[in-house]
Amino acid sequence: MLLASDYVDNGVADIALSTDFYELTMAAAYHRSDFETKRRKKKAIFEMFVRKLPRNRSYLVAAGLEQAIYFLTKMRFKDKHISYIKSLKIFKDVDQNFFQYLKRFKFTGTVWAVPEGSILFPNEPIIRIEAPIIEAQIVETYILSMINFQSLIATKASRIVAAAKGKPIIEFGSRRAHGPQAALLAARASYIGGCMGTSNTLAGYKLGIPLFGTMAHSFVMSFDKEEEAFKEFNSLFPSGYLLVDTYDSLAAIKKIIDARIHTSGIRLDSGDPYYLSVEVRRLLNYAGHSNTRIMASGDLNEYLIRDLVNRDAPIDFFGVGTELSTSRDDPAMNGVYKLVAIRLPASSPSNCKKKYNDNLNGKVLYKIKTSPGKKTYPGAKQIHRIIENNIIKEDVIALEDEKKISGHMCVPLLRKFLDNGKILCKMPSIDEIQRYHCQQVNLLPPKFKDLDFVPEVFPVIYSEKLEAMMRQIKPE
Amino acid sequence: MLLASDYVDNGVADIALSTDFYELTMAAAYHRSDFETKRRKKKAIFEMFVRKLPRNRSYLVAAGLEQAIYFLTKMRFKDKHISYIKSLKIFKDVDQNFFQYLKRFKFTGTVWAVPEGSILFPNEPIIRIEAPIIEAQIVETYILSMINFQSLIATKASRIVAAAKGKPIIEFGSRRAHGPQAALLAARASYIGGCMGTSNTLAGYKLGIPLFGTMAHSFVMSFDKEEEAFKEFNSLFPSGYLLVDTYDSLAAIKKIIDARIHTSGIRLDSGDPYYLSVEVRRLLNYAGHSNTRIMASGDLNEYLIRDLVNRDAPIDFFGVGTELSTSRDDPAMNGVYKLVAIRLPASSPSNCKKKYNDNLNGKVLYKIKTSPGKKTYPGAKQIHRIIENNIIKEDVIALEDEKKISGHMCVPLLRKFLDNGKILCKMPSIDEIQRYHCQQVNLLPPKFKDLDFVPEVFPVIYSEKLEAMMRQIKPE
Repeated sequence: MLLASDYVDNGVADIALSTDFYELTMAAAYHRSDFETKRRKKKAIFEMFVRKLPRNRSYLVAAGLEQAIYFLTKMRFKDKHISYIKSLKIFKDVDQNFFQYLKRFKFTGTVWAVPEGSILFPNEPIIRIEAPIIEAQIVETYILSMINFQSLIATKASRIVAAAKGKPIIEFGSRRAHGPQAALLAARASYIGGCMGTSNTLAGYKLGIPLFGTMAHSFVMSFDKEEEAFKEFNSLFPSGYLLVDTYDSLAAIKKIIDARIHTSGIRLDSGDPYYLSVEVRRLLNYAGHSNTRIMASGDLNEYLIRDLVNRDAPIDFFGVGTELSTSRDDPAMNGVYKLVAIRLPASSPSNCKKKYNDNLNGKVLYKIKTSPGKKTYPGAKQIHRIIENNIIKEDVIALEDEKKISGHMCVPLLRKFLDNGKILCKMPSIDEIQRYHCQQVNLLPPKFKDLDFVPEVFPVIYSEKLEAMMRQIKPE
Repeated sequence: MLLASDYVDNGVADIALSTDFYELTMAAAYHRSDFETKRRKKKAIFEMFVRKLPRNRSYLVAAGLEQAIYFLTKMRFKDKHISYIKSLKIFKDVDQNFFQYLKRFKFTGTVWAVPEGSILFPNEPIIRIEAPIIEAQIVETYILSMINFQSLIATKASRIVAAAKGKPIIEFGSRRAHGPQAALLAARASYIGGCMGTSNTLAGYKLGIPLFGTMAHSFVMSFDKEEEAFKEFNSLFPSGYLLVDTYDSLAAIKKIIDARIHTSGIRLDSGDPYYLSVEVRRLLNYAGHSNTRIMASGDLNEYLIRDLVNRDAPIDFFGVGTELSTSRDDPAMNGVYKLVAIRLPASSPSNCKKKYNDNLNGKVLYKIKTSPGKKTYPGAKQIHRIIENNIIKEDVIALEDEKKISGHMCVPLLRKFLDNGKILCKMPSIDEIQRYHCQQVNLLPPKFKDLDFVPEVFPVIYSEKLEAMMRQIKPE
């Protein structure tokens, strides 16, 4: 019996092939071109940024860097990968030296990025990679899928957490996430965005995220009577929650009271959560169960939670599944990864007079793209965040070597995480990332926390030097 | 330097914990209850089905079974998993016997399912699992996330392929998929739904799906002149495609012609694909490059492709990314997994007079749920598909032991794949699954292939016996 499925949870062993195929054909073409022109010491600089945020979002929460760094330091091509690539017809004319190169391949570049949990706006670089061009190119797809997805979910979580105004949110979406790995990554990103916990056991095991769970309808149905199921569960797990909507939520509450089951909490999962929570609270309080907490779940999102909170529904916390773990109202973060410059080796003469070259050393070729609606700004960039009275006033995107904007409380957002392939610092814990995100949210002007469409765009400007360069540069 | 990220692509080693935490607390409660009541030989029967399809879909394409079966046969709890579970405060009163049970845990159940590639409608079972209740319960989350996601993407792909009316579709969405594993699974599901290939290299390596790729804008930008990039790439990969929109698509075509580059194809990735494809075709033909093919990409979906095909745009094939790999217009398949019956061991007396018991053997307790909007039908079911003149006329959902509907060409859709934990048959290849799906699409009445909202629901009826049972059964 043959099962071809051992790839589903394939180990780190195969991550090198988690890539768009064109990265490999381009690598081969770069490689040949390097050999012919000795361009090998040139470094390419790529930046990832998001042109347009998902629907109604006015900021994004950066997440996924830790996994991106992990990939950059661990990915290797194994012999079996190389044999596979060689076996493909399109590679038939590719020189053996390229396959030797793949065998030795190791990411040796330098990485700047904003810390996970940072709040960013459109066009601001999330990560900047400087490396020999094959290395910088070949890692594109993995970096994008990892950071796009986690940033998407952290952003959604941040909105849902804000809507709940301090009432805890638990991420419950594993069964609707885009596969088991997406479920795990969604749990991580949700926690970064401010959720209190997750139902995903692997996220507890691997990351220490607090686990939470109640019971399924099937548990209730497997007993002859609903109250038997409640008693059985409660006697083993007195801190557990009872799910009351298998048959009739209010009738179930009456059974709990009549059977004198002292449960820590109950979960509502269908029907009108406002009406039911009010009735359940009344019944429980009347019976002296005022400590029993009420959790609500069932296709909740930031808008429904805002409404319930604004109406003072007596719900103590919320379980959010599908809407969070798929970012259902807009499930794609459109991050792109663009070449912004090529740094020539110190000894190499610039043979490219037409280019706008860096005044300081004449060694950087600035790159822009001019496709309709897809223009890019050139050069390695830094974001300077100007903060006044504990509120972000504006962000200035400048060239990396521009001085800090003076006369302001100004924070450069991108930090160096990898230096020539070496990790520079201990990555923060998931709790530190969550706290950092929370601080970031507090710096945001209130109007940009609105859940609905914000007509105003957050003020992000380019430095004068960058704008001047953009006016003068020729694309090629 | 500590990196906590080795979980991202964790091997099969940890899939047992890819589960909602409540599956484990319920397992402990079931386990204790089993010990006290000797219910261990009872088998629970669960079915997965979808109540409501994603927006505008009038059918779903089942996918993900192979990975579900893989999980069922491979998942085990390791000592470190069990130590983790034991360490959690909520488990402090749980008997050691439960942890011993987890150590021995192995799925021993029987699985019926529709073959991958099948077309199904709301409420029809995709998979049915019969096993001791802990086993059937504990596998819920993984089965749901795997089958929900792949079915979501196979369904989306089937629509996009239909819209293209025979023009090939390549799946290009890895960078926007929900993480690297979702990218791989999306490539698989897209191929099942009828796509011709993928850009995901791992899907080529692991599954043999044809790989396709062109080049990135960065490749073009890394050369001093666009035509140098084209020449370099074309000389190494004469069958490769050139991306022409880095600066100006039509100008790039003129450069290709002037430089006498005989490329197999070009890719348009921005601007108006109708206008550009017409102009590009005209320019290429005029220059004698009538064999050069045109590919279009850039936020395409089934509606845009339908429009381009209906207007006879001279596009030879389409690359579809974000819209396909995230099922962007509706990114969740809401499959649920519900207890439908409990089968008692032959020797066990039924102590449950109130239940509607099976007339034949008196050994099945039928289970239903009555939550508002979430009713379920009881019993282990089979789908009988009635086909007339090579078109599906209707589906009848019946109890598993009901006879075939006579006087019709009638096909039972669910087949047995696992028997007491053992795989019964060789799983079909991905090409066989794709062909099977294609046959299934051909059986569908044309109006249900419409991409827009179909006001009519496909005729799925319950057998008389099932309807009679539903009227008589008491939920508890």
